[in-house]
Amino acid sequence: MGKTIRFGVSLDLDLLSRFDSLCSQKSYQTRSEAIRDLIRNALVQQQWEDEELETVGVLSLVYDHHHSDLSGKLTQIQHEALDLIITSLHVHLDHHNCLEVLVLRGPGKDIRHTAQKLTSTRGVKHGSLNLTTTGEELV
Amino acid sequence: MGKTIRFGVSLDLDLLSRFDSLCSQKSYQTRSEAIRDLIRNALVQQQWEDEELETVGVLSLVYDHHHSDLSGKLTQIQHEALDLIITSLHVHLDHHNCLEVLVLRGPGKDIRHTAQKLTSTRGVKHGSLNLTTTGEELV
Amino acid sequence: MGKTIRFGVSLDLDLLSRFDSLCSQKSYQTRSEAIRDLIRNALVQQQWEDEELETVGVLSLVYDHHHSDLSGKLTQIQHEALDLIITSLHVHLDHHNCLEVLVLRGPGKDIRHTAQKLTSTRGVKHGSLNLTTTGEELV
Amino acid sequence: MGKTIRFGVSLDLDLLSRFDSLCSQKSYQTRSEAIRDLIRNALVQQQWEDEELETVGVLSLVYDHHHSDLSGKLTQIQHEALDLIITSLHVHLDHHNCLEVLVLRGPGKDIRHTAQKLTSTRGVKHGSLNLTTTGEELV
Repeated sequence: MGKTIRFGVSLDLDLLSRFDSLCSQKSYQTRSEAIRDLIRNALVQQQWEDEELETVGVLSLVYDHHHSDLSGKLTQIQHEALDLIITSLHVHLDHHNCLEVLVLRGPGKDIRHTAQKLTSTRGVKHGSLNLTTTGEELV
Repeated sequence: MGKTIRFGVSLDLDLLSRFDSLCSQKSYQTRSEAIRDLIRNALVQQQWEDEELETVGVLSLVYDHHHSDLSGKLTQIQHEALDLIITSLHVHLDHHNCLEVLVLRGPGKDIRHTAQKLTSTRGVKHGSLNLTTTGEELV
Repeated sequence: MGKTIRFGVSLDLDLLSRFDSLCSQKSYQTRSEAIRDLIRNALVQQQWEDEELETVGVLSLVYDHHHSDLSGKLTQIQHEALDLIITSLHVHLDHHNCLEVLVLRGPGKDIRHTAQKLTSTRGVKHGSLNLTTTGEELV
Repeated sequence: MGKTIRFGVSLDLDLLSRFDSLCSQKSYQTRSEAIRDLIRNALVQQQWEDEELETVGVLSLVYDHHHSDLSGKLTQIQHEALDLIITSLHVHLDHHNCLEVLVLRGPGKDIRHTAQKLTSTRGVKHGSLNLTTTGEELV
């Protein structure tokens, strides 16, 4: 963490009091922390607009492991994207359903492409990609 | 507009310089204005979570006016929601396609319900509801 | 409207019965109409990913018209984007607050840029852009 | 998996050919599979609207582990929600940044609340909750 700067923000009193309620509802300790989160969210969103930028995505797949040869197919797609996938986590949701969570790192475009291929595989019930960040430039 | 309060926000220098780039890219004149917009967006989002709160929605419908009796059906649904719909605007997009923009005001729940009924009418190609605000408590 | 094709979709019985409940909750008359809407929504989303494609956006701006010279500034930005803006609609929400709804048509990139400039103008409390469509290739 | 039903969907030829392009771009093998995914996404979205329903969320947190006592605080919040958190996964993104992925299962409301508390903790740079499903009623 580098140098910290303090600057002033002017807000109408009514708006400020509504913001303070929001902060407390969302468990923020200070206004600064809530504002930093709003700013960092806007920056992460902007990062994902540049498709070539290195970033991090977390893909959640829910599927029925009894589905014929599904895990074989998912493994094969993952092996074609070895350089993107850092790790994966498996949860047995019930007798039929599995949740697989994959952490991907690379250009936003490639993360989206691999996530789409896994999601569209027959037998995957739900796939959703969470756009997060390497954290590198977000202090 | 009431009393204006000025308070300090502390931010790491790197984060601040990235935020300044974002502000300039998004045409904000000052950091305060950008932060006020982030705050107001969060508050509008929160307003829509309370389904009973009075708010404002703008519904866009794109449809083919040649579609059998479509405008009749849309008009009928609108008349059942007279108390919600403030006004509407019509644009002839081309020989076939019309855009109708409706401004609705009332409890969030009722706005969503009417918007859904209009969107699901056969012949409507695309319907999307924009969640905005009465502006009343946002200064 | 051109030729209509009928094709078969296979669905598990449980999934189908849950889909039927969703259709009825969302006021769809037939499964086909609900499926067409899901498909058209996916296509409109895809259209907006191509920044150069001609499309239609509806921008809602809520602002306080007492704010010093705000309408002058908004008018000026609109005049710089004359070729994009088809029309606008004005609603007096209360003594202070106005809603202005603008219909824009042009490349997605230009619509976003103009919407961003208007939204970031000091005194605009809330700006949100609704991504819709010319309807041209959506039957 | 139970009984499979086949039913007909009618679509205009132009819309169908655009949908086929979308399917191929998104790596779907068949139209049925793409339509099933659109339907399941709509159902998962609906599930999350009922706050009391049991569902599954995947929370991604990016934070600087050098930040004073942050992991202690995150651990404490997690221990207050032991019944919700199934497991977590840790990735060292670089010398400073960690990614922690938590799998939560329970009523949507409780998942959101715990996710919000973790996200708002000072030092967490980015927190985002992915709304997925137990898969139970989605075949």
